[in-house]
Amino acid sequence: MISRPMRAFLAALALAPGAVSASGPNEAVRAYRAAREPEILAELMELVAIPNLASEEGDIRRNAAHLVRMLARRGISGRLLEAPPGPPAVYGELQVAGASRTVVFYAHYDGQPVVPEQWTTPPFEPRLRSGAIEAGGRLLEAAALVPPFDPEWRLYGRSASDDKSPIVAMLTALDALAAAGVTPSVNLKFFFEGEEEAGSPNLARQLGAHARLLAADLWLFCDGPVHQSGRQQVVFGVRGVVGLELTLYGPLRPLHSGHYGNWAPNPAAELAGLLAAMRDGEGRILIDGFYDSVRPLSPAVRRALDGVPDADADLRRSFALGRSEANGRLAERILAPALNLRGLEAGEVGERAKNAIPTIARASIDFRLVPDQSPAEVRRLTEEHLRRRGYVVVADEPDGAVRRRHPRLVRMQWEQGYPALWTDPGLPVSRAVLAAVEEAIGEPVVQVPSLGGSLPLHQFHESLDAPLIVVPMVNHDNNQHAPDENLRLGNLWRGIEVYARLMARLGELWTRP
Amino acid sequence: MISRPMRAFLAALALAPGAVSASGPNEAVRAYRAAREPEILAELMELVAIPNLASEEGDIRRNAAHLVRMLARRGISGRLLEAPPGPPAVYGELQVAGASRTVVFYAHYDGQPVVPEQWTTPPFEPRLRSGAIEAGGRLLEAAALVPPFDPEWRLYGRSASDDKSPIVAMLTALDALAAAGVTPSVNLKFFFEGEEEAGSPNLARQLGAHARLLAADLWLFCDGPVHQSGRQQVVFGVRGVVGLELTLYGPLRPLHSGHYGNWAPNPAAELAGLLAAMRDGEGRILIDGFYDSVRPLSPAVRRALDGVPDADADLRRSFALGRSEANGRLAERILAPALNLRGLEAGEVGERAKNAIPTIARASIDFRLVPDQSPAEVRRLTEEHLRRRGYVVVADEPDGAVRRRHPRLVRMQWEQGYPALWTDPGLPVSRAVLAAVEEAIGEPVVQVPSLGGSLPLHQFHESLDAPLIVVPMVNHDNNQHAPDENLRLGNLWRGIEVYARLMARLGELWTRP
Repeated sequence: MISRPMRAFLAALALAPGAVSASGPNEAVRAYRAAREPEILAELMELVAIPNLASEEGDIRRNAAHLVRMLARRGISGRLLEAPPGPPAVYGELQVAGASRTVVFYAHYDGQPVVPEQWTTPPFEPRLRSGAIEAGGRLLEAAALVPPFDPEWRLYGRSASDDKSPIVAMLTALDALAAAGVTPSVNLKFFFEGEEEAGSPNLARQLGAHARLLAADLWLFCDGPVHQSGRQQVVFGVRGVVGLELTLYGPLRPLHSGHYGNWAPNPAAELAGLLAAMRDGEGRILIDGFYDSVRPLSPAVRRALDGVPDADADLRRSFALGRSEANGRLAERILAPALNLRGLEAGEVGERAKNAIPTIARASIDFRLVPDQSPAEVRRLTEEHLRRRGYVVVADEPDGAVRRRHPRLVRMQWEQGYPALWTDPGLPVSRAVLAAVEEAIGEPVVQVPSLGGSLPLHQFHESLDAPLIVVPMVNHDNNQHAPDENLRLGNLWRGIEVYARLMARLGELWTRP
Repeated sequence: MISRPMRAFLAALALAPGAVSASGPNEAVRAYRAAREPEILAELMELVAIPNLASEEGDIRRNAAHLVRMLARRGISGRLLEAPPGPPAVYGELQVAGASRTVVFYAHYDGQPVVPEQWTTPPFEPRLRSGAIEAGGRLLEAAALVPPFDPEWRLYGRSASDDKSPIVAMLTALDALAAAGVTPSVNLKFFFEGEEEAGSPNLARQLGAHARLLAADLWLFCDGPVHQSGRQQVVFGVRGVVGLELTLYGPLRPLHSGHYGNWAPNPAAELAGLLAAMRDGEGRILIDGFYDSVRPLSPAVRRALDGVPDADADLRRSFALGRSEANGRLAERILAPALNLRGLEAGEVGERAKNAIPTIARASIDFRLVPDQSPAEVRRLTEEHLRRRGYVVVADEPDGAVRRRHPRLVRMQWEQGYPALWTDPGLPVSRAVLAAVEEAIGEPVVQVPSLGGSLPLHQFHESLDAPLIVVPMVNHDNNQHAPDENLRLGNLWRGIEVYARLMARLGELWTRP
């Protein structure tokens, strides 16, 4: 919900659309935006004001219907791609006479869950601030909104950055090109997913059902933040992931540690030893054969890595870290597979600690995968590693009889997971995207061979067999997935220019030798 | 509270006291008991019915006053040894003409906290059952109480076994000796502590203030259970203990494990490695020098150990264990020092797990000590062990600046702890106690060189400089410290005979060469 005075003020400021004169296509887009900041922001705020948890059917369909209206305003006939019981994806396309390539712009319109009490202002009442809350940014009232808006202003609200502003940026880019009389150089398709933050459980089915509709030469993912340095980045991949819950067993009931300790196996001590045999304190994975199928970094990846700015010292300071694992560079470390211990649990600590041998000890792990590893292979190698140490591996909760039978017993519960997906930065399509983005921003772009994080991009790749490249736009300190999510306005302005340039120039740059 | 019909019935059954004829002192005590089972049980039930949490001043003083009345009934002038703000100890003595040795009988009258909803019948409404609840024991109504009572019957109630029944056993032993015309062979002192289950915070002060009053040649501790096999045991020591809370630090806030994992140190992984470097999965402590000051087992201890029944296979079955650590015998394993991991905590596991690097990882440890280790030495060795691995050890919560400064940082919070106390089973006093108990039970006693558990017996030893020996009487499956605490009646009957025999014969056996 946008407050009434704010809505009135923005409406009053919005100019009637019309052609804008400027010296070149970049300048034309910038001038278009500069003349319509209140209007653009109003459109984003209207969208952010609609609650968007994927599992709330009424809310999520209000978003979808709103997106269809936003497409219609651009003359694009939007449609819903249904995949019950999940939310629909919103689809639209713009065929360009003479264009030989087709590019899909991807974004998602659903958002992470919210706990309203944890927010400074309500998550679905978008508000502008003079800066980030952490930096003392203060609320801006309607009367303060005199264009041009300060690019350091922030818009607060769930999905302001993740991932509604890219949708507004794409559609505004279309408007700006139209206003400047520039025809896109590629056929455009828009695919707005409605369940990304819920783990995309119905996506593969949705993509499979509409494979012909969604056929394209490139998927551009407009999601995620720019580099921590604030510089524009293009991301060529994501790591895969597979989760594991690991449980070791001690006595059936907690036993007095004095009377039985040193005799009844302590599952917490056993767990510590087992984990120490799987990963060392510097991140090296000790599971036999774990690195065997890791594809060596390509020359293009190595070159890209050299150009990634080094923010390591600042990050260490900000996180209060006295070191980094293996003294490595962040940009390079996230191109390796990783075993992350996300949780440990056994007995009790601190004031609740009892002098008892715990009955079970649990560890929660996420493995991050790189090409050419697969979740199935990681599972096989890990289980073999433990079997070689004398463990019997079970998937289900073992009863007393099973626990009695096996001196060493471990329960391993695997998530399904998915593999990594990397597009080589040296491919012609990759070079074309880089060139278009650099034309838009007028400086070298940060090439990120792969995010450290994971997205199920392999689903798109498997279903649609097209290269995928991520072109993010929002500020890195956007509190993604957390309370007080926000968008820095300057990032929206730049996003419009970047997406407009991609639409305008990709076809030409791509076909060039 | 005892139910009205039950009270009336027991009162009606109770015989008038009088001399009992029997063929010998053992038989006299047994016959005395057999003739007065309802009366003895009624006295215990009256005592158990008084709530006895040390911190509830009104309740705990009602217990103390009741004990003074119980002593008075035997012609002993009881007094309260005050140690504000703690509960009083109840003291009484019986000087015997011609006796040269003085023995203190120790028990405690306070009990563990209760959660009444977890009890099958209310903890302070003592009830009789035909057996253990776990074995299908059913409630006995007043009409069923026809002597002689089945020794397998159980009395349910908080402190029925830990530690009120030993008090009734001691005082009944006195009655039985008096009835048989047998004079104790030693001077007797009774010391009933009121805060044992609360950790005895005021005990050292209390003992120090009354050191002359409490002077003795032997302290007999009438607390704890008999051997798991059901056989009578005499226990010559306890292990010491010292607790440790150990904390490792990761990033100031949880970091995305994809974006920062493998680079930001993972404190949970570091903790696993650190614990694995302190103790292996077989209980061996890897801290440099940890075993250096461990006193070798004496010949008498080794002999005692040979006589301890082996219940290991049954216990493994009952606890659903597939092995025991180092394949060791329980009786021997608890004579070694131990590092028990009582808890682990970092991030989250299972459904609550997030793909994040935890900010801290915690372990809670209890060390069990044997002669001649001290808590101070264990602390020094453990901290040195970690310092050699590059850790800076701090006692307080480190702020961001401290965390930034040290690549390896560990917080160690130590409890005060206390050392072990072992009385050699080969000493003359030890042999006298063993001989008296064996005379009472007519079979070899189980000699336990030390409990695996810990009791602050060193406080008595330091304050009073007398040997200490534990002569327990209650059943091992008494649910001590848990809901449905209970006493097997047969154990009370045997306890009376054992304590009577100690009173009657210790002086004579002790002075024998």
